[in-house]
Amino acid sequence: MANLVKIYEYLEEHKLEHVAKVQEFLRQPSISTENKGIRECAQLLKEYYRKIGCQEVELVETGGHPCIWAYYHAEAPKTLINYCMYDVQPVAGETWTHPPFEAKLVEKPPFKLVVMARGAYNSKGGYRMWLNALEAILAVEGKLPVNLMFTAEGEEELGSPHLAQFIHQYKERLRRADAVLNTGPSQQIDGSIRMAMGAKGIAEFELECSGHLWGRGPQEFDVHSSMKAITDSPIWRFIHALASLTSLDGNTIRIEGFYDRVRPPTEEDLELIGQLEKTFDPEVWRRTFKIDRWVDDLQGRELLMKFIYSPTLNIQGIYGGHIGAGSKTVLPHKVACTLDIRLVPDMTVDEVMVKLRAHLDKLGYTDILIRPLAGYPPAKVSHKTDIAQAVIQMYRKNGIEPQIWPISGGSWPMYLYCKDPLQLPYCSGGLGHGGNAHSPDEYLVIEGDGKVAGIVEAEKSYVDILYNYAHSEP
Amino acid sequence: MANLVKIYEYLEEHKLEHVAKVQEFLRQPSISTENKGIRECAQLLKEYYRKIGCQEVELVETGGHPCIWAYYHAEAPKTLINYCMYDVQPVAGETWTHPPFEAKLVEKPPFKLVVMARGAYNSKGGYRMWLNALEAILAVEGKLPVNLMFTAEGEEELGSPHLAQFIHQYKERLRRADAVLNTGPSQQIDGSIRMAMGAKGIAEFELECSGHLWGRGPQEFDVHSSMKAITDSPIWRFIHALASLTSLDGNTIRIEGFYDRVRPPTEEDLELIGQLEKTFDPEVWRRTFKIDRWVDDLQGRELLMKFIYSPTLNIQGIYGGHIGAGSKTVLPHKVACTLDIRLVPDMTVDEVMVKLRAHLDKLGYTDILIRPLAGYPPAKVSHKTDIAQAVIQMYRKNGIEPQIWPISGGSWPMYLYCKDPLQLPYCSGGLGHGGNAHSPDEYLVIEGDGKVAGIVEAEKSYVDILYNYAHSEP
Repeated sequence: MANLVKIYEYLEEHKLEHVAKVQEFLRQPSISTENKGIRECAQLLKEYYRKIGCQEVELVETGGHPCIWAYYHAEAPKTLINYCMYDVQPVAGETWTHPPFEAKLVEKPPFKLVVMARGAYNSKGGYRMWLNALEAILAVEGKLPVNLMFTAEGEEELGSPHLAQFIHQYKERLRRADAVLNTGPSQQIDGSIRMAMGAKGIAEFELECSGHLWGRGPQEFDVHSSMKAITDSPIWRFIHALASLTSLDGNTIRIEGFYDRVRPPTEEDLELIGQLEKTFDPEVWRRTFKIDRWVDDLQGRELLMKFIYSPTLNIQGIYGGHIGAGSKTVLPHKVACTLDIRLVPDMTVDEVMVKLRAHLDKLGYTDILIRPLAGYPPAKVSHKTDIAQAVIQMYRKNGIEPQIWPISGGSWPMYLYCKDPLQLPYCSGGLGHGGNAHSPDEYLVIEGDGKVAGIVEAEKSYVDILYNYAHSEP
Repeated sequence: MANLVKIYEYLEEHKLEHVAKVQEFLRQPSISTENKGIRECAQLLKEYYRKIGCQEVELVETGGHPCIWAYYHAEAPKTLINYCMYDVQPVAGETWTHPPFEAKLVEKPPFKLVVMARGAYNSKGGYRMWLNALEAILAVEGKLPVNLMFTAEGEEELGSPHLAQFIHQYKERLRRADAVLNTGPSQQIDGSIRMAMGAKGIAEFELECSGHLWGRGPQEFDVHSSMKAITDSPIWRFIHALASLTSLDGNTIRIEGFYDRVRPPTEEDLELIGQLEKTFDPEVWRRTFKIDRWVDDLQGRELLMKFIYSPTLNIQGIYGGHIGAGSKTVLPHKVACTLDIRLVPDMTVDEVMVKLRAHLDKLGYTDILIRPLAGYPPAKVSHKTDIAQAVIQMYRKNGIEPQIWPISGGSWPMYLYCKDPLQLPYCSGGLGHGGNAHSPDEYLVIEGDGKVAGIVEAEKSYVDILYNYAHSEP
């Protein structure tokens, strides 16, 4: 048996060093959208895998940013795959209290200490804590209790366009694993735990309307707006085309057949929802996201069902013509917007894109361009597997009964691990808390407040999960 | 009698010097929107007024960019007011063949030589030629045939928010003038002339929709787009609010009572339209603006009537959330767009703004902000006045029968000169041609092609107008 007490002590004693390692990782920018610091960050991550003693560490070139394959062979009976994203969201246009790549340690009530940085919460901060935990086990025990296959990508924020290519390249090795474990800060601001046993899929795309493709309005450049009297406007066309996609409140999608493949909740799902209902408190989200009222003023179970089982059509941004202060009397020749569709089981990227095209075509908007940016399907696993139980056991040891969510609202290409080509059980979890993902002042808690874990407790939770799983019946 | 031949010879002999002066003026940036080079340009213009011997030259501070008052007293029986704008449009985001403030002389078929610069056509290039013409008269004759009151503003591209303040400050002096004359390159690409005896008014404003003002959706910052399932989107709300403003094709304005005050054409107008119809060739515009088809595929008289008598609602630009390459999975908390309404007689800025507000309120969009940027009413004069006839006479001398337009499509605060507080006859004109106003590669012809005038012929045309007017019956 491993000496858990000694490992915990090691984590306590190396706390300052571990915080510094988190800061080091966060200070390396890795904005995939802008290709800023991506390769430097991949190199840093390779170093980390080497330091924990991985026998194999490979930078894997793809059609986009590189992936990293690493393998730690512990001669253990069980093998886990670990996924990580090393890229982060852009910061342009955001106003931060502290520079987003300074990784400053600051007080952020109710927390005594957080690290504030782009990627602190999503997801580099927590990932470095997980690596710290592995280093602690190795320092005390000499080896890990399981074999670990690391799969890291630098394009999660782009919609993981090349992860499938990477996974397929290593699928023969990966298939030999027993399960997938991802770790990260999973506590909400009140200390409660959400475990997501599924992820929505996503289709990201750009819509563009131009005089050039339409054959009406300005063909090549923005013209003087006095011409509007006799000139068609691609922006007005775009506004009406977009308006046709949703109900007036923007919440019901009017694309024909859009909801056809939405699978109703399973019996296991409804059991989970029944449990969830007792503890789910949207107040935490309201405070975190500064949202006063939910769609249709939903509450309780209805809100929960909507969040979990609704596919969405979201406008990420819209831009055309004169952008910025004051006016410019032009009639713009083109306009575009970026959108994402979140997919629930059993929707697929292809079918929603086909339906969107058909919708636009039917209304005569055959000229409006759909430029796919990224996409992958949803996925869902059971919470009854060994790996999920290993995680749940850790929470219970810490006095937390986790909320188990059948599907999370967010998206990651979980399907690659849980469906074809690997078909493995999967779970993610860990103590700790962060916030403001994709927003200014993103943070990760370093010193907890009694409700949420600080760095040491988070790292201990990762240690616990590994040993719980290693000792579970094969 | 003045020695016109000698003045013409002077213009020929000083051609190179005059081209250099045009370039000098254009090389001084004066972007009002960005407050770039405005004061430097105002100083330069003051120098120009001093050099032609104005006894009064004053920089007049306003609530915005400065105006310039200058007076040349010729002890002549007649006095003309001359208006000029010394500001230009922004160039940000535009792709130019040559840098926009280099004022390069280049071949631009069918023209042997044009000067390419922001402001070349709209309006600094032609204005400097007019000043060159005045200098030539002064060099040959010693004095001008009329007294001149110069009124220059640096905010035309902002919608002239402080011109009224300036005009009112000098109204006692200005009222003593007999008429208003503005000069500039008025030939179309085929050499034909459009004379506008009126200008549409304009109301420019920004619309903004935010979660904060709405009380729904994200209140303070963009949130993760997975929240869309239960969070209202200000952008979707905005799209539907905008869509309510026009017909599906974007060309008929659905604001209640919007067209109520549109005055039908007068008998004099219909006479002019009858004349116009014979020579009006939209082909020139099609080539200039790269527009293949007009609204509703209109042609001939119908197109003409639409252009002249239609008020418009134009979106200059729209912007919100993630703007730029790739995707960013956020649900934006606000979105805005800039619009302009072009007003025809007898519409007013106030009434259309009130109607727009009422329209939005009626549909429940009370939270959508209308931020007025600028505005002034339309104006219209007769072509039968002495000053207009002096201009027409010059064209006929050059073998051109001008197209007389009751109202132009563009806007400038002509009302300040033709209606309260001055109530003066007004005309503008001159030979020469330019293009791409408000667009990349804006240009002004320096060497004509037989159809359109070069710099010397343009300057001669200004000389002719002045003497025609000076000699007309009082």
